Amino acid sequence: MTRTQPRYTEDRRPTTTTAMRVIVPLQGVVQGRGGLVLGSIIPCALFYFLQLYLKRHRSSSNPPTPPTSPDPDSEPVEVTVLPRSLSRSHLSPRNPGPVYVSGRANSVLRGGEPPYYVGLRKVAEDPYDEVGNPGGVIQMGLDENNLALDLVGDWLMENAKEAIVGGEELGISGIACYQPFDGLLELKLVVAGFMSKAIGNSVTYNPSQIVLAAGATPAIEILSFCLADSGNAFLVPAPYYPGLDRDVKWRTGVEIIPVPCRSADKFNISISALDRAFNQAKKRGIKVRGIIISNPSNPGGSLLTRELLFNLLDFAREKNIHIISNELFAGSTYGNEEIVSMAEIVDLEDLDQNRVHIVYGLSKDLSLPSFRVGVIYSFNKNVLTAAKRLTRFSSISAPSQRLLISMLSDTKFVHKFIEINRERLRGMYLKFVAGLKQLGIECTKSNGGFYCWADLSGLIRSYSEKGELELWDRLLNVGKVNVTPGSSCHCIEPGWFRFCFTTLTEKDIPVAMERIRSISETCKSHS
Amino acid sequence: MTRTQPRYTEDRRPTTTTAMRVIVPLQGVVQGRGGLVLGSIIPCALFYFLQLYLKRHRSSSNPPTPPTSPDPDSEPVEVTVLPRSLSRSHLSPRNPGPVYVSGRANSVLRGGEPPYYVGLRKVAEDPYDEVGNPGGVIQMGLDENNLALDLVGDWLMENAKEAIVGGEELGISGIACYQPFDGLLELKLVVAGFMSKAIGNSVTYNPSQIVLAAGATPAIEILSFCLADSGNAFLVPAPYYPGLDRDVKWRTGVEIIPVPCRSADKFNISISALDRAFNQAKKRGIKVRGIIISNPSNPGGSLLTRELLFNLLDFAREKNIHIISNELFAGSTYGNEEIVSMAEIVDLEDLDQNRVHIVYGLSKDLSLPSFRVGVIYSFNKNVLTAAKRLTRFSSISAPSQRLLISMLSDTKFVHKFIEINRERLRGMYLKFVAGLKQLGIECTKSNGGFYCWADLSGLIRSYSEKGELELWDRLLNVGKVNVTPGSSCHCIEPGWFRFCFTTLTEKDIPVAMERIRSISETCKSHS
Repeated sequence: MTRTQPRYTEDRRPTTTTAMRVIVPLQGVVQGRGGLVLGSIIPCALFYFLQLYLKRHRSSSNPPTPPTSPDPDSEPVEVTVLPRSLSRSHLSPRNPGPVYVSGRANSVLRGGEPPYYVGLRKVAEDPYDEVGNPGGVIQMGLDENNLALDLVGDWLMENAKEAIVGGEELGISGIACYQPFDGLLELKLVVAGFMSKAIGNSVTYNPSQIVLAAGATPAIEILSFCLADSGNAFLVPAPYYPGLDRDVKWRTGVEIIPVPCRSADKFNISISALDRAFNQAKKRGIKVRGIIISNPSNPGGSLLTRELLFNLLDFAREKNIHIISNELFAGSTYGNEEIVSMAEIVDLEDLDQNRVHIVYGLSKDLSLPSFRVGVIYSFNKNVLTAAKRLTRFSSISAPSQRLLISMLSDTKFVHKFIEINRERLRGMYLKFVAGLKQLGIECTKSNGGFYCWADLSGLIRSYSEKGELELWDRLLNVGKVNVTPGSSCHCIEPGWFRFCFTTLTEKDIPVAMERIRSISETCKSHS
Repeated sequence: MTRTQPRYTEDRRPTTTTAMRVIVPLQGVVQGRGGLVLGSIIPCALFYFLQLYLKRHRSSSNPPTPPTSPDPDSEPVEVTVLPRSLSRSHLSPRNPGPVYVSGRANSVLRGGEPPYYVGLRKVAEDPYDEVGNPGGVIQMGLDENNLALDLVGDWLMENAKEAIVGGEELGISGIACYQPFDGLLELKLVVAGFMSKAIGNSVTYNPSQIVLAAGATPAIEILSFCLADSGNAFLVPAPYYPGLDRDVKWRTGVEIIPVPCRSADKFNISISALDRAFNQAKKRGIKVRGIIISNPSNPGGSLLTRELLFNLLDFAREKNIHIISNELFAGSTYGNEEIVSMAEIVDLEDLDQNRVHIVYGLSKDLSLPSFRVGVIYSFNKNVLTAAKRLTRFSSISAPSQRLLISMLSDTKFVHKFIEINRERLRGMYLKFVAGLKQLGIECTKSNGGFYCWADLSGLIRSYSEKGELELWDRLLNVGKVNVTPGSSCHCIEPGWFRFCFTTLTEKDIPVAMERIRSISETCKSHS
């Protein structure tokens, strides 16, 4: 093995950089008279003394240039230079400089923490509790529904053991040994049944079109990997939920092109806006591979009409692109309108099955995010095959699978859960919207999901993202309520906020309203 | 929405293509005499009649050209042309051609099924069972250890319910609601403890350096995403385990450069071979970002010496690259030699901590692959932070976490499991190797893992990969034993096979040996 000797010349590299930092502003300062002369002599002198100083004070030498030059994107990693504690230490060159971290890891590390995630962190650090921590932050930012958790809890209490270690001749190997990565057939069967029930039995789902992954997040990522290559894009009507950017873009290199929906159109999707965005992308040389829609919409909570779904499919056909329909909240509707699954549309449009993919999961409609169950429901055989193979990176644990096979086979429980959950959702939604209305805050009409999409534009000091984030900051840090600012959802009109009401109890509502009121009043008094 | 009118001219496209396919060979056939004339007239006439035929038999029109031309990589998806069942059907253009599937999905779909996966599928279709299916295929290809499953089963029977729904004030929210994606701190604590115990308490692992993912497979993939960009490469001493290609390459676009180890060196890793491979890659313009090693080695089952680990670290420092040490089988050792974790080496080499990452999991040492628990243990803060964020795509389900926190906190159980598992591993290893020896088949000396690495080169008809795969095929389809051919592990010497003995019971050994014997005798009689 060849060893590179430490080279002394390398020692100067950091010093040179420092000197350059001195020269440039100095030349600016003395530019008027004799600028060039003074601007050269002074830094040269400084440079000389610096060198002298460093030579005397440094005993150790710097490392050789690393054989592969680190990517400019890579953040230098601090390396503490310590003497090796082994006798072999004299054999090795010291600290060869920062070790490479990939460009994509750096883009995951960069960019700070978006407000949505800041809010979640603040609640985690200081969560509100009526008794234990009444001054803590009230959670209205997380996509979680705790309204009917008691039902799931009761079921588990009664059936968990039997579900996990019981069952006929399965024994321990049924829960410990390798299972198919894309989910057990038994689970697919009951999940298909649950999906049908959740959507009011308007569609029958075929278990063979299901690929299961460890959450809806990997389900969306797997679809992104399958439908688009790095540098390709998806059109996404905005506002959309704040996690989607990370889900789609981080590892796949696929871009999202937000297509703005406007309050004047009740935030409905506009096909002509999609068309414009598609053509603009084309002009920029970006290949659009699909549209991602949410139904019910998130954050808006509106249901996509049958007519709109047909139009979206027509648009997708015309452009020869895919549709990913996120129907995570399909069973969490509470209005009088009927939800229409993209699967129902496709059943009538055999021609376009290959371009339609539905994302579902049990995190929202069954209130079990931590069970990590996501569903890809696709009509495209190639996508199903590729997705199945990719679930090796994100498969559902056997304990989750066993518990859910048992739970979802219990039709009495499923029926009861869906009904009661829907009732409680409706009740909380009405109470929460009424509470905001009393404060003079209007929401768009929601029919599903866990959110109110509220117009607080009257309370922001400047009609801009900055103004919106100032209000968000005051709500969070003064009012102690965590809500999601519209800008985190790529809403182009400032002042809209997403309030999640399913993380609250009924008792929490007046407390939350009082906090929002106090902030809104200080806003009004300032304006 | 603008609708493109069906354009009749487009109708000719598929026909034109067909005609071109006729023209070109025809010109070839009739090239000698009047080739140009005949070669033009015949296809033109054919083309005319085809057109006529199509005009009469097609009532519907074809779609417009898709705006984005499908990638040449994409496999055309068969689209059945069916009339739309809706009155709106006349509004839409028909079948716009195959919809795009990404290049990476196509590379996942392509390439057929490697022998390793064919073998696993065959067992799944027709698994051997002494009573139920005595003619079925005996599994010796899967990386699974069933020798001490009974202990885990007993523990679960006694404690599953309490672990899942019990526990102080946790209640249902502790198992249902969102948890940190990178694993509960409580689980990290007990996993760190288990890792220490598994390796004989020679190292203490720091829970804050642990990121948990849903399996060792995503753990390796996450590290690949973090340490290398698409087109970069890792050096991997070969033979290596057959799943690694998929784990590392499929979604990240990172390449693996196998660095051959040889039977003459007892398949030990050679630093000079690594050095050669590194330099060759550099010449080809490929940036090598790291080395992936397995300790104990898989398939070889040998332990990497302290000296070798120091040399690997020296090499990594010299080249300024990373080391990923796969220590999945660290607790599954059974020889007299002591296993040394890379963590122990790094504790002595503070300087190089940033480049060292360990992969661990509970699938091998705790026999629980279906619990989906993988561990990234890293000394690099940036990598830990990025990896934590990336676990959103692959996080462990709460039921698994709760069960394991409870199980691994039970120190009595853990101690008993590790001891008994080790004893049974040793027993099976010795019996299995002795069985092969009786058949005249020699293995390299294993000290850990679930495998024997056996030399069957004397039984292959031609000393080539083809000869090896012929023997593998006969073992699988005639002998009904599923083993892994060395070529699936990128071994460059033909005739080596990996036999997993931990999927067998003691009773299975004579049956397996008899089957191997019968195949080996037909081989000998032919040679």
